Amino acid sequence: MGKGNVLVGQSGGPTAVINSSLAGVFKTAMERGYNKVYGMRYGIQGFLDEQYIDMADYVKNELDIELLKRTPSAFLGTCRYKLPEIHEDRAVYERIFELLDKLDIEVFVYIGGNDSMDTIRKLFDYSLLTGAKQKFVGCPKTIDNDLAITDHTPGFGSAAKYIATSTKEVICDALGFSYKKKNVIIIEIMGRNAGWLTGASALSKGEDCEGPDLVYLPEVPFSVEQFTDSVKEKLEQKDVVVAVVSEGIRTAEGKYICEFTAGSETKDAFGHIQMTGTAAYLSEVIHREIGCKTRAVELSTLQRAAAHLSSKIDVDEAFNVGGATVKAADEGNSGVMVVIDRISDDPYMSSTGVYDVHRIANGEKVVPREWINEAGDYVSEEFLDYVRPLIQGHYSPMMVAGLPRHLTMDSKNYDWINNKNIQ
Amino acid sequence: MGKGNVLVGQSGGPTAVINSSLAGVFKTAMERGYNKVYGMRYGIQGFLDEQYIDMADYVKNELDIELLKRTPSAFLGTCRYKLPEIHEDRAVYERIFELLDKLDIEVFVYIGGNDSMDTIRKLFDYSLLTGAKQKFVGCPKTIDNDLAITDHTPGFGSAAKYIATSTKEVICDALGFSYKKKNVIIIEIMGRNAGWLTGASALSKGEDCEGPDLVYLPEVPFSVEQFTDSVKEKLEQKDVVVAVVSEGIRTAEGKYICEFTAGSETKDAFGHIQMTGTAAYLSEVIHREIGCKTRAVELSTLQRAAAHLSSKIDVDEAFNVGGATVKAADEGNSGVMVVIDRISDDPYMSSTGVYDVHRIANGEKVVPREWINEAGDYVSEEFLDYVRPLIQGHYSPMMVAGLPRHLTMDSKNYDWINNKNIQ
Repeated sequence: MGKGNVLVGQSGGPTAVINSSLAGVFKTAMERGYNKVYGMRYGIQGFLDEQYIDMADYVKNELDIELLKRTPSAFLGTCRYKLPEIHEDRAVYERIFELLDKLDIEVFVYIGGNDSMDTIRKLFDYSLLTGAKQKFVGCPKTIDNDLAITDHTPGFGSAAKYIATSTKEVICDALGFSYKKKNVIIIEIMGRNAGWLTGASALSKGEDCEGPDLVYLPEVPFSVEQFTDSVKEKLEQKDVVVAVVSEGIRTAEGKYICEFTAGSETKDAFGHIQMTGTAAYLSEVIHREIGCKTRAVELSTLQRAAAHLSSKIDVDEAFNVGGATVKAADEGNSGVMVVIDRISDDPYMSSTGVYDVHRIANGEKVVPREWINEAGDYVSEEFLDYVRPLIQGHYSPMMVAGLPRHLTMDSKNYDWINNKNIQ
Repeated sequence: MGKGNVLVGQSGGPTAVINSSLAGVFKTAMERGYNKVYGMRYGIQGFLDEQYIDMADYVKNELDIELLKRTPSAFLGTCRYKLPEIHEDRAVYERIFELLDKLDIEVFVYIGGNDSMDTIRKLFDYSLLTGAKQKFVGCPKTIDNDLAITDHTPGFGSAAKYIATSTKEVICDALGFSYKKKNVIIIEIMGRNAGWLTGASALSKGEDCEGPDLVYLPEVPFSVEQFTDSVKEKLEQKDVVVAVVSEGIRTAEGKYICEFTAGSETKDAFGHIQMTGTAAYLSEVIHREIGCKTRAVELSTLQRAAAHLSSKIDVDEAFNVGGATVKAADEGNSGVMVVIDRISDDPYMSSTGVYDVHRIANGEKVVPREWINEAGDYVSEEFLDYVRPLIQGHYSPMMVAGLPRHLTMDSKNYDWINNKNIQ
């Protein structure tokens, strides 16, 4: 008797390479003789509404696989949906396993971060309770790099490369205008609790760029007064000062800097309390305290979506990790997450491993304090040595008419009733 | 007797390709037998302080020329400095021409936008008054594409390519999260009076992307109420609505949208009136009126500095236009700007021409009303056909250690007194 089917879903915030993992799942499943690969639309949330596709309707050849590897965001759609505890609501689990049986699913792969690994853990636990035969495997993904056990997460390297490149370009731009005037640039980077991405901005430092002058991670308490003093001090030595801050920096009392304007009763045109961004707030402080020109730059969703500048290491690892999930299940593993083990830094080598998902779920890996300098305003050489290999190499986008081509699902051409592409 | 020297400067806002024009000036000057090419530091402002370099100290070989073509911002530094009228202050002109004589300058090239062409005009006029022999030639540059006579300006194509790519990636990212919830994204683009760049976001529309739903240029009066109604209407048809707005949109009465919160007495934490960005303001309006999730995305200085995604057409044209300035001067022209003439759209072909700078200076070219739809919320096919050729082709960055390498001047290693590189 042949093998059954694989079900794969994407969950949580998108990255530039989450679809590369999807491509890896699909390709390895086909190579290992599974019958079909179904994709959940919008993760477990859409799946509960019986929204799924047959991947083969969309990924028809090797070119499609290469396009998928270069397409940002979640091809299948994503969700933020937390499964209840099993004892709280068994009905949801019964519904899911009923659908799994209906679709003859043997392998369930979920690509995501901490919350998604929690989903894998719960589904696996439920399968133990009921003796269900499906294998549940987690595929790590997050730009934040805050998953435990794995050396790093797919998605981090490409975001780090985009952030380092953009920081370099913003610094270059600011220097052009620096004659006889002072200028302070504050760049805000994603990562509420973990400063991996913020620290990666310092990779811009090199022979052709001084890099940022100050880098503030959320791991260290932030003082607005100390920040202002540090900027003043830097401005005595140079005309352009660039500070990079995490969106999640907060005071020793635990108050987020981005909440500050709200605290001082700033209201918008409608009387709402306004959540001014961290960089925007600090830029205003510097302008008031020092009087020089300032500019706040937010990289926004671009830092997780800029597939046009993804790292080759990252795209390839995401693909391999996706494939490794199917391999792990095929070899009998369940309730596990695939992790990346670093074998060496230079030359960089890595392999995949498999870990019990119970050891991973809901843990959060932050930057070790010893990888941040004593003053708490820069990262160490050890930090940079850790990140540097992950931004190497370039996956050329497939340019069509001057723009990167993506593989996307045109849901209007899809017949949900019969689960068939209409085209 | 051999030829004298060339002096070149950069002025106004930087672009991703302004250094490609600088490379073109340098290379053509060397090929045409000029002795030296001096570069003004920080435009005419730095030059008045005798800040200049010998380009040969920094651009030593063909690799440096290629690096310079890929380096964003102004290699020499730039300024915003308006020369007085000749009758107002002759002393400034006497000082400039004294320095030109001292450095044996035969050709003066200024790379910039409208204001810089005004500088060329004034210096040329002064040379007519005094019989000075130097040739003054303008080299067009601006991401805003608002210079008259020339078909388009170097710098525009690369910014347009970056904006279209980023718009596509932001849309892709937003679609991933669209299950059972509405989401409105508002992207803000540079260009205070001319909507060329804002309109270029619509190039993202194609087989794999629906593009933005609404595009607002500063050429058409903007109504916040009409905007809100249009977003509501779109949200009835789809879950994710993306609007792209120029930073310069204003009401029929001429009030900038970004001034709105100030007008309604929004104050920041320090009691300052706050200039909230256009997208941030509109995002707040939509959140209040419709209640759905919204996000404001500003591309900030990245749109003029993202050399890693520059257009090949643009980099090559910038280089050629730079070379054409020296050629024009060498053939006896002065008081002129080099322009780009479009010969055909498809296949795209262009050539350079030379125009009297008096016809160009201080003019501003905006998007013709007939290239914007009647409702004033999208650009026409004619607009897109005009822009599309300019974003074609890709100049691969020279990647070193995973990041684009730039050619930059390390001013600390420069001896200003003897105008010599110390290294």
